[in-house]
Amino acid sequence: MDFDLKAYLNVRRLMVENALNTLLPVESERPQKLNEAIRYSVLAPGKRLRPTLVIAAAEALGEDADLVMHVACALECIHVFSLIHDDLPCMDNDDYRRGRLTSHKVYGEAMALLAGDALLALAFELVAANPRSLPLDRVVQTMHIIARASGTRGMVGGQVVDMESQGVEVSQETLFYIHEHKTGALISGSVAAGAVMAGATQSQQEDLQVYGQQIGLAFQIADDILDVVGDEARIGKPVGSDQERDKATYPRLFGLEKSREMAHFHVQRALDALSTFGAGADPLRAIASYIVERDL
Amino acid sequence: MDFDLKAYLNVRRLMVENALNTLLPVESERPQKLNEAIRYSVLAPGKRLRPTLVIAAAEALGEDADLVMHVACALECIHVFSLIHDDLPCMDNDDYRRGRLTSHKVYGEAMALLAGDALLALAFELVAANPRSLPLDRVVQTMHIIARASGTRGMVGGQVVDMESQGVEVSQETLFYIHEHKTGALISGSVAAGAVMAGATQSQQEDLQVYGQQIGLAFQIADDILDVVGDEARIGKPVGSDQERDKATYPRLFGLEKSREMAHFHVQRALDALSTFGAGADPLRAIASYIVERDL
Repeated sequence: MDFDLKAYLNVRRLMVENALNTLLPVESERPQKLNEAIRYSVLAPGKRLRPTLVIAAAEALGEDADLVMHVACALECIHVFSLIHDDLPCMDNDDYRRGRLTSHKVYGEAMALLAGDALLALAFELVAANPRSLPLDRVVQTMHIIARASGTRGMVGGQVVDMESQGVEVSQETLFYIHEHKTGALISGSVAAGAVMAGATQSQQEDLQVYGQQIGLAFQIADDILDVVGDEARIGKPVGSDQERDKATYPRLFGLEKSREMAHFHVQRALDALSTFGAGADPLRAIASYIVERDL
Repeated sequence: MDFDLKAYLNVRRLMVENALNTLLPVESERPQKLNEAIRYSVLAPGKRLRPTLVIAAAEALGEDADLVMHVACALECIHVFSLIHDDLPCMDNDDYRRGRLTSHKVYGEAMALLAGDALLALAFELVAANPRSLPLDRVVQTMHIIARASGTRGMVGGQVVDMESQGVEVSQETLFYIHEHKTGALISGSVAAGAVMAGATQSQQEDLQVYGQQIGLAFQIADDILDVVGDEARIGKPVGSDQERDKATYPRLFGLEKSREMAHFHVQRALDALSTFGAGADPLRAIASYIVERDL
């Protein structure tokens, strides 16, 4: 494929960061410290994978980024909310994320907790704002998708089971549950939200749902592998930190080679799900391939 | 007024608790511990003031409780999410709430944090589910109202300024900000959500908004007063706990007598806002009056 993914990701990232900068509450307004903490975490350097997936799904259906920008930003808010809470002392107790101090190290635990809470609420406020006046059935369906992807039957559910699995032997089924929920739910939710907002037909929604689920799984397996073989600067956290925490991972359960195969398998299934889509889906295709091309 | 508020509140409370019991995730499903923690906090005894206000607002417009039950439960989920996070060690560090151990004392801090997070997401899932197939503009507007009432410009914003004000002299303006946001936003949001879901006209929405804001203020002033003069068993927390924490309160800034006057003033303004409503608004009227009749 001739598609220039690097340039594509770069432009989408800048569009998203520009929109976030406009949409986030400002530090000059009350409550200043909270707004500052929110901006500190959200505007920290990031790949913006989830909002980019929202946009790429809309583009696969012939729509442009602007149509779904509020929803894209909402997904990033939910992602950052989960990072802030994940880093708290009662969870992973991390002092650094991507080389910068974590929210609670800068603003204290209470403020970090509340900044996360506020970001989750803000996500739904952004979707409900519906500035492009899209049909309301799309808005409500999108709300339902991302609420579900965030809660007990999505991301939070995955975090809980992940937490409970530290230091104990986990079954394959539990590992799958963790990966499908903890990271997978929000990644596939991003694709589904972009598709619905852009007016996908039922059959397009189903194809894109398969795509989202499969890259979600591939992404998490790749992350597990990189935790073993990656270099620290690139993955932004100490190599081996999952092992140190005794976390359930693919390499631990299946070994490195088999894990690599599984990642490739899921990427191939994601690509297959896009077979009826035209060139508009090239960004989605390139993103899927990229997941397993990161020097696994 | 002949209206039997006690019986009314009792019936609405039971209806809400019955619905919550059905709508909350069950302990037999994964993630079991999380679902258990969610049910422990939400199904703990409570007044169910916010869901009752959702219902009472719908009834004031001639609709019944069932029409808005999912939204009523959503408001209770948001309220309980805020209580769980408020009780955490990094916030108020409370071991007991209404005579029962707080979530983090039973399930640990991480689980309590995640139970709160999941409840906020669940609230939006409940609203988006729209089981009575109400017009979607009502659903989206309700989403917007409760998302805003929960976040930086609502409840969380109020919590932050309240936290920052402990142990420092606060201005009247700051006290008003805290009260309007910390408790007021979700109370007036409940009334507004019920009104919108029940199809209120613009002018009815405005009247009910004034009602909600005024009882929100009255409620918080009454709470401040009860913290000074109430008896522990009835208010469910140690008398004087606000003073101990050096919190900004009305009695502290204005004295008890003036605070009582202010509470009555806001209740009167709330009642005035209902002047064009018929007998259907009697529950709302009785609730407003009750706020200042609790032996202040």
